[in-house]
Amino acid sequence: MASYLVTGASRGLGFEMVRQLASLPTSEVSQVFATARGDAPALQELVQNSSGRVVIVKLDSTNEASVKQAATAVGAALSGKGLDVLINNAGVMPYSPEGVVTMDNLESTLSTNVVGVHRVTQAFFPLLKKSNLKKVANITSTYGSNALAPIYMITPSPAYKISKAALNHLTVQYALDYEKDGFTFFAISPGWLRTELGGDWADLSVEEGTKATLDKIIGAGKEQNGQFLNIHVKGWETVPEGKLNHYDGKNAPW
Amino acid sequence: MASYLVTGASRGLGFEMVRQLASLPTSEVSQVFATARGDAPALQELVQNSSGRVVIVKLDSTNEASVKQAATAVGAALSGKGLDVLINNAGVMPYSPEGVVTMDNLESTLSTNVVGVHRVTQAFFPLLKKSNLKKVANITSTYGSNALAPIYMITPSPAYKISKAALNHLTVQYALDYEKDGFTFFAISPGWLRTELGGDWADLSVEEGTKATLDKIIGAGKEQNGQFLNIHVKGWETVPEGKLNHYDGKNAPW
Repeated sequence: MASYLVTGASRGLGFEMVRQLASLPTSEVSQVFATARGDAPALQELVQNSSGRVVIVKLDSTNEASVKQAATAVGAALSGKGLDVLINNAGVMPYSPEGVVTMDNLESTLSTNVVGVHRVTQAFFPLLKKSNLKKVANITSTYGSNALAPIYMITPSPAYKISKAALNHLTVQYALDYEKDGFTFFAISPGWLRTELGGDWADLSVEEGTKATLDKIIGAGKEQNGQFLNIHVKGWETVPEGKLNHYDGKNAPW
Repeated sequence: MASYLVTGASRGLGFEMVRQLASLPTSEVSQVFATARGDAPALQELVQNSSGRVVIVKLDSTNEASVKQAATAVGAALSGKGLDVLINNAGVMPYSPEGVVTMDNLESTLSTNVVGVHRVTQAFFPLLKKSNLKKVANITSTYGSNALAPIYMITPSPAYKISKAALNHLTVQYALDYEKDGFTFFAISPGWLRTELGGDWADLSVEEGTKATLDKIIGAGKEQNGQFLNIHVKGWETVPEGKLNHYDGKNAPW
């Protein structure tokens, strides 16, 4: 019976994680805090059918005061208990179709995808510390892999890729520092999903990719601390004809 | 006969690179542009003894206008020729001795060490494009290696480490995008030097480490494009007793 907080839950992977978590038995998931910057009508509908298990929390990860307010609100809702699992999912993926040298969105992307994750982790750290699980999953991407970069050249989103490489190392730093306190930090690539961000050409349906991502997050133990996880999807253990990705469940290379 | 530009040249590794470059024969080094944010008395002395080969350029890599002005000034000084080698050396290394979760300097460090390098590279790109060499060396650190992170836990500078991981991926993105245009981009770790930044306990003297760094930069060809280079220092091919580092000249792991 664990409590979860998912950032960037108004749509896409974040929303679907909340939906799937809320559909698990209460013996596994006690409460799901779903954060969104603004209005989130789809989430509100989910709340109404969740018998109080899903709670919407206003949170803008680029705004320190907003993040702190959110942590206070979640702390109050947990009434003394700890937060078991933090899923840092909020992020942006802007493009630079004219090449890396024209990239004008690096600073803002790092601010949201890296500093935003740090800010949220900082604010919720005391609540995580109170739990037994103390698990933090940072949603990254194999786009942030140096070793895999050549195969992803086709996607003109250098700021996103650089931010995910930075996020991976942020994860490593947290993992090394707080292993001794019983924390587990890992980065996980959810695969290329047919969300608004991923587009229609993506490999996996939102349902399938999210299920595979949650399986990994729920299954991850202390031995995954500091690692770069990849999802496992049946039939994708090797790269299918005409595709770039495989989802074999083994760690991605840095 | 190549022209060089070194950022962050007022002291430490940057200054010593300028000094050593200016001591090479004019058949190898035609001109060295040494950039500094503010006054740089040591550089000024160097200029006076350089017979016009060393030129100081005001440049604050965190300020777009300043970077553009510097590029215009260098373009004028090159009078139609291209810039052969850009060495992005400027950077900061702040500490977070109370642990990663207390880190309050991530945004500013990413801004200087990653966005700053991008800004400078953008501005000097047209001048680099005019040259035959088109070489860009980004001064990184093995502190930015995910694989080596456990051995560097002892140094409480997470923002620096994360910024160097991001810089490595910025380098990879540039390398992939502009290989077709004849560019060579690589990241190079200069080793741990007894500069102001490195401290008295560091492995190598500034002279020795800088020499090894320049050897690598000068020797690097197109086959090093997109790589994470490490210096070679005789006697440091394996990790000496009581030390953390080796300088075997082979690439560092991501």
